[in-house]
Amino acid sequence: MKDRIIEFIRKAVLDNNYKGAVIGISGGIDSALVGKLAVESLGKDRVFGLLLPERDSSPETLADSKLVVSYLGIEYKIQKLTGALRGIGTYRLQPPALFIPSGIKEKYVRSKWNALSEDPFLDDLRNRGNEEFSKGLAYYRSKHRMRLVALYLEGEKRNYAVLGTTNRTEKLCGFYVKWGDDSTDIEPIMHLYKTEVYELSRKLGIPEKIIDKAPTPDLVPGITDEFSLRMKYRELDEILERLDTGKEIDPLDDKTQRVLKILEAAKFRDLRNLSIDRI
Amino acid sequence: MKDRIIEFIRKAVLDNNYKGAVIGISGGIDSALVGKLAVESLGKDRVFGLLLPERDSSPETLADSKLVVSYLGIEYKIQKLTGALRGIGTYRLQPPALFIPSGIKEKYVRSKWNALSEDPFLDDLRNRGNEEFSKGLAYYRSKHRMRLVALYLEGEKRNYAVLGTTNRTEKLCGFYVKWGDDSTDIEPIMHLYKTEVYELSRKLGIPEKIIDKAPTPDLVPGITDEFSLRMKYRELDEILERLDTGKEIDPLDDKTQRVLKILEAAKFRDLRNLSIDRI
Repeated sequence: MKDRIIEFIRKAVLDNNYKGAVIGISGGIDSALVGKLAVESLGKDRVFGLLLPERDSSPETLADSKLVVSYLGIEYKIQKLTGALRGIGTYRLQPPALFIPSGIKEKYVRSKWNALSEDPFLDDLRNRGNEEFSKGLAYYRSKHRMRLVALYLEGEKRNYAVLGTTNRTEKLCGFYVKWGDDSTDIEPIMHLYKTEVYELSRKLGIPEKIIDKAPTPDLVPGITDEFSLRMKYRELDEILERLDTGKEIDPLDDKTQRVLKILEAAKFRDLRNLSIDRI
Repeated sequence: MKDRIIEFIRKAVLDNNYKGAVIGISGGIDSALVGKLAVESLGKDRVFGLLLPERDSSPETLADSKLVVSYLGIEYKIQKLTGALRGIGTYRLQPPALFIPSGIKEKYVRSKWNALSEDPFLDDLRNRGNEEFSKGLAYYRSKHRMRLVALYLEGEKRNYAVLGTTNRTEKLCGFYVKWGDDSTDIEPIMHLYKTEVYELSRKLGIPEKIIDKAPTPDLVPGITDEFSLRMKYRELDEILERLDTGKEIDPLDDKTQRVLKILEAAKFRDLRNLSIDRI
């Protein structure tokens, strides 16, 4: 599994005239694994890490990201996105309800987010929801897109490829931001389910602190991946793999029904560049 | 030609749960035409224009953009990108040589740009060039990506689709920025050559001032489309159409050779999300 990815990264970088690779290090497991694979593929000196905190990032995110780049031994830069996000107007969209003491913030945000929609994850995928919900979507997605701008600015300056960190579970479920974290040059782990990301990370010795934390996009305080999905990655991947390999599923099972709904809604996320055929 | 596009826009917007459409109005012919088609398709009240000037935009750009939104009769907003671009670090990349009096600026920039590479347009497509050239690429492309962030922030807030303005000539030649102006929901004129964009614009009564100006991405002063392409759109489209329809071409013709080189190099621009198949 590892050797194939390492060879793939090397070939993709060289074939396309890139001199190395840049990775957004989030402090999460996916970017830590991609970083590790890139270092083994290209060598430390040709991998650059970008840490992209902004006003609402949790302080642990930066600490964990520093742990990852130090583990990888790569050169890195901390580029705050706060100024750019303020300039573009992102923070003006944040519901005032979010400005509350950090102790109770996460719990408050979760109930607030759920109050806006019966199923925020599905409505997010389907472009549905009321005005306040739409503002919330614009708010968090613009952060992902600003990360994209920063990653490419750094990458293109060096003629480095931008490596993505999306895994197969996220890809199938539309669990990414259109023209955000889905927009990259090379995707080294897009063929791996999240559970396989864990497996490979353990095998390669990614720090346990990174492996053990709850996965979160760290865009809105308190909203973790499994909170949005309403199930464990382990459960989700099991159902996705059954579907992938044509195994039998139980259509009456609650979790299976939810996965089928997610996959149906994910089609909207995939709408891009709709155009007319030239006849 | 017109009716088909109008019906296409309406269906694409409704089928995907959007309430309207947002368009970045650049003062150029493509966005003016897309604006006109969108207004005829959705009605003025469901089309929103975004004018996105930044520090290096020419003053005419803003004046022409205002002319277009006033002609279209749509609601619009001027959102300066200068603060966001400064926050992300774009302006730190601008070669100091560009800070010269505006009178001779354009001519100076053109010779400077050409001195960096024998063929900047092809090297841009192929990810080639020296360090200073790479900086120039990072510099101008980040502006296109910041426009993307602004367009989606506005669009998603309203639950409006983002309409692109890329035409077939630009699409085939890689004459766009990856994850910039190529990243949209709906592309109403992507099936039309640039010469057809002119034709339809005249037919629909787009203001002559907009039709007659030299097409430019307005990202680096003095660099127009035809300056980069090294030929007229009329010549380019004639060759592209011959290739498209399988007509005979003259492989010894200079212009034809250049077009073939452009099409070959454009493959690099299309590299995105390279990943491993799951077997």
